[in-house]
Amino acid sequence: MNIRIQKTFEALFALEEIRGIFRASLPTGLDPGEEALLGRRIADLKAIVADLEAGTGAPRVTRIAGTLDVRSREEQSINIHPIQAAGRLTTEARKALISYGDGYSTCDFCRKPFRLDKITKPGIAEFHGELARWLHMDEARVVPGARRGFQAVASSLVEKGDTVIVSALAHYTEFLAVEEAGGIVKEVPLDGRNIVTADATAQKIEDVRRETGKLPALVMIDHFDYQFANEHEIAGIGRVAHQYGIPFLYNGAYTVGVMPVDGKRIGADFVVGSGHKSMASVAPSGVLAVNEEYAPKVLRTTGMVGDVTKRKFGIKEVEMLGCTLMGGTLLTMMASFPAVKERTLHWDEEVERSNFFAGALLRIGGSRVLSEYPRRHTLTKVDTTGSFDTVARTHKRRGFYFSDELSSRGIVGEFAGATRTWKLNTYGLTWRQVRYLADAFTEIAEKYQIPMQR
Amino acid sequence: MNIRIQKTFEALFALEEIRGIFRASLPTGLDPGEEALLGRRIADLKAIVADLEAGTGAPRVTRIAGTLDVRSREEQSINIHPIQAAGRLTTEARKALISYGDGYSTCDFCRKPFRLDKITKPGIAEFHGELARWLHMDEARVVPGARRGFQAVASSLVEKGDTVIVSALAHYTEFLAVEEAGGIVKEVPLDGRNIVTADATAQKIEDVRRETGKLPALVMIDHFDYQFANEHEIAGIGRVAHQYGIPFLYNGAYTVGVMPVDGKRIGADFVVGSGHKSMASVAPSGVLAVNEEYAPKVLRTTGMVGDVTKRKFGIKEVEMLGCTLMGGTLLTMMASFPAVKERTLHWDEEVERSNFFAGALLRIGGSRVLSEYPRRHTLTKVDTTGSFDTVARTHKRRGFYFSDELSSRGIVGEFAGATRTWKLNTYGLTWRQVRYLADAFTEIAEKYQIPMQR
Repeated sequence: MNIRIQKTFEALFALEEIRGIFRASLPTGLDPGEEALLGRRIADLKAIVADLEAGTGAPRVTRIAGTLDVRSREEQSINIHPIQAAGRLTTEARKALISYGDGYSTCDFCRKPFRLDKITKPGIAEFHGELARWLHMDEARVVPGARRGFQAVASSLVEKGDTVIVSALAHYTEFLAVEEAGGIVKEVPLDGRNIVTADATAQKIEDVRRETGKLPALVMIDHFDYQFANEHEIAGIGRVAHQYGIPFLYNGAYTVGVMPVDGKRIGADFVVGSGHKSMASVAPSGVLAVNEEYAPKVLRTTGMVGDVTKRKFGIKEVEMLGCTLMGGTLLTMMASFPAVKERTLHWDEEVERSNFFAGALLRIGGSRVLSEYPRRHTLTKVDTTGSFDTVARTHKRRGFYFSDELSSRGIVGEFAGATRTWKLNTYGLTWRQVRYLADAFTEIAEKYQIPMQR
Repeated sequence: MNIRIQKTFEALFALEEIRGIFRASLPTGLDPGEEALLGRRIADLKAIVADLEAGTGAPRVTRIAGTLDVRSREEQSINIHPIQAAGRLTTEARKALISYGDGYSTCDFCRKPFRLDKITKPGIAEFHGELARWLHMDEARVVPGARRGFQAVASSLVEKGDTVIVSALAHYTEFLAVEEAGGIVKEVPLDGRNIVTADATAQKIEDVRRETGKLPALVMIDHFDYQFANEHEIAGIGRVAHQYGIPFLYNGAYTVGVMPVDGKRIGADFVVGSGHKSMASVAPSGVLAVNEEYAPKVLRTTGMVGDVTKRKFGIKEVEMLGCTLMGGTLLTMMASFPAVKERTLHWDEEVERSNFFAGALLRIGGSRVLSEYPRRHTLTKVDTTGSFDTVARTHKRRGFYFSDELSSRGIVGEFAGATRTWKLNTYGLTWRQVRYLADAFTEIAEKYQIPMQR
């Protein structure tokens, strides 16, 4: 590890040791033994900071809790991992996490009616209102990942044996949420460009009606899918679902938090987003936004009464299981939110950089972009069978030569060893970083004498 | 805020700003502008550390992301909040969180078969094995809170209209998990000491059988309940459930992570624990451990097949919805785990300090302990109607006088304004801290001339 990055982590860890001294002390202050300990810790810290400044010293901390490596790939490298890019914490989120990491940190001022989304200090209630408005929906709840949003909706709307329409590129968590609710998925086939169209969705609904004698219980479609990150005809699909009177879930795992999403305009009854995938938050986190028509159903409160005690917990929402994200997950969502809102306004620039990289890749002979092109997203599936894989076929490290070449240039997040079809994500890279990335690919191609296109 | 604590946070935040510089840079190093910025940030940091050392300076950072207060109650105060005590992060967990806070941080080396609990770097697979062995169960999975463990079990075992036996002190999340699965809770009444007995559980099972013609689908009982933290006859209840052939879920939200739990000895088919409540982890987190009899049912893998694509996701577990805690939640559980295992071996000392405090409270005339006494847990429900509330009745600040008195002594986490029945938790306090706590209560009583017992 770069010694200055190493020393940055060591300084952070030294400060956590200092926090530990305060935590173990009395509110009246430190005793002489604690003061002495603090003095030693501060001396350690100062030595680390001196090394940080000078770029000197040797690594002194290489493991956390004896077993965990210090994870520094975001500081050390350019990370093109397909699902990590937009989940990286903002600096403010990292500060919030330092401050609010402890277990139930959201619960200091929990008062009646004792529900997470009603807490005003910190401003969790206000955040929920903002989330709903931002997505142009009526209600919003935070959930432990987008999948828990699918689950809440499927569990509320899908009866045993019901059909749910998903896309032929649906994420596996949609399959599981439907299965858990006792339903059956039916996939909308793709057109020749790997796009889910409104027409194909209408056709699939008709097929289901003909085969089962019943309309599907739910249409659940990804705006951009996880395989190609192609853009599907989401607004048209919403219209089709509504023509049949079927509720429509908009899966925004790859959109909410990176581009503007307007649930009303799309005609979504539900908008689901992922905190750790696209909202710069700790996992597992996400958002389920609901319109006023379906809120009473999916956000229904408990009706159960204890037969002996007659207890009721009427404010608690069944599908949420009461409170959902009671600590650092939620606080990172909140701390990142101003930056996340702002960054969605610059999605066009992210897409421009994505296309810049794709263009550079395509200049390397034999390379293909399997996703729709020009790109409308930063996640891209590429096929380098005709370029980088031609080298792997005879290289003693096989496909790992390519990973070696990338990592020697400080690029990580590719699927190690893969040189045929694989995915990468340029989200969040600056122009300087994306140019560096493109140049690195070109350099590797030149090194192995892969011909460039004219 | 104590200025040295304030400066500790400011130093941490300054270092996060420094991390931000590295994150925005190229892998080849900082450019001159970035070097200059780093230099200024390091100068800031050194000034903060100098203030930390000298105890000088004024607060410069009071908000995160413009709206969030810096949460410093664990550093500043003694926190007796009923549910926060055992969820506070260990120092190692705080370091892990700094390092692994970003979104999908667990996924750097995810390889086939692409499931969280199979990842070996970091050692997530090994941790799952250790968790299961530690609880004396056959399989373990991490889940987003104990409630998601109840949900997975209820969803697997409870059909519409089925009965689930819970305690008259059951947590509301058990009600919700059963309701979500379409079942109905039936409560085991308490005996005169507010204990759920094996005999009463057997009686309730008989009642259900007589009334519904069917045995309950599940018995789900808290070892220590959330109201009194009384110890219930958990092993006897496990035996009773098994005599009837009913699966038994041991709710260890208040035990797993603070005291030794042996699922085999208890006769548990399921052991559920809470990471943010009792395992020093970020919320939402928890564990669901299962014996080999029920693992195939509750941890069943998906059987759904895409009708168009023929896609299958056979390794993914339906109730887990695939992966569960893909980031800082899991990494804090793992980083705290060595300390958590160790601390369960000293539970007797925690209980001794709990009793020490309860004894001191009981010497204040008119005070009562509503939980079983002597205490077997660190969470305690007290009744100060006859002591501190007598002052509140005529005080212009009403019950808030008591909160004022506590907070002026650096004690937080009581339910603000409550002077009749309320709960507190001494978990994790040192002897010095618990003596200070007891003395503070005595001092307040003396100040308001509440008579002491002889």
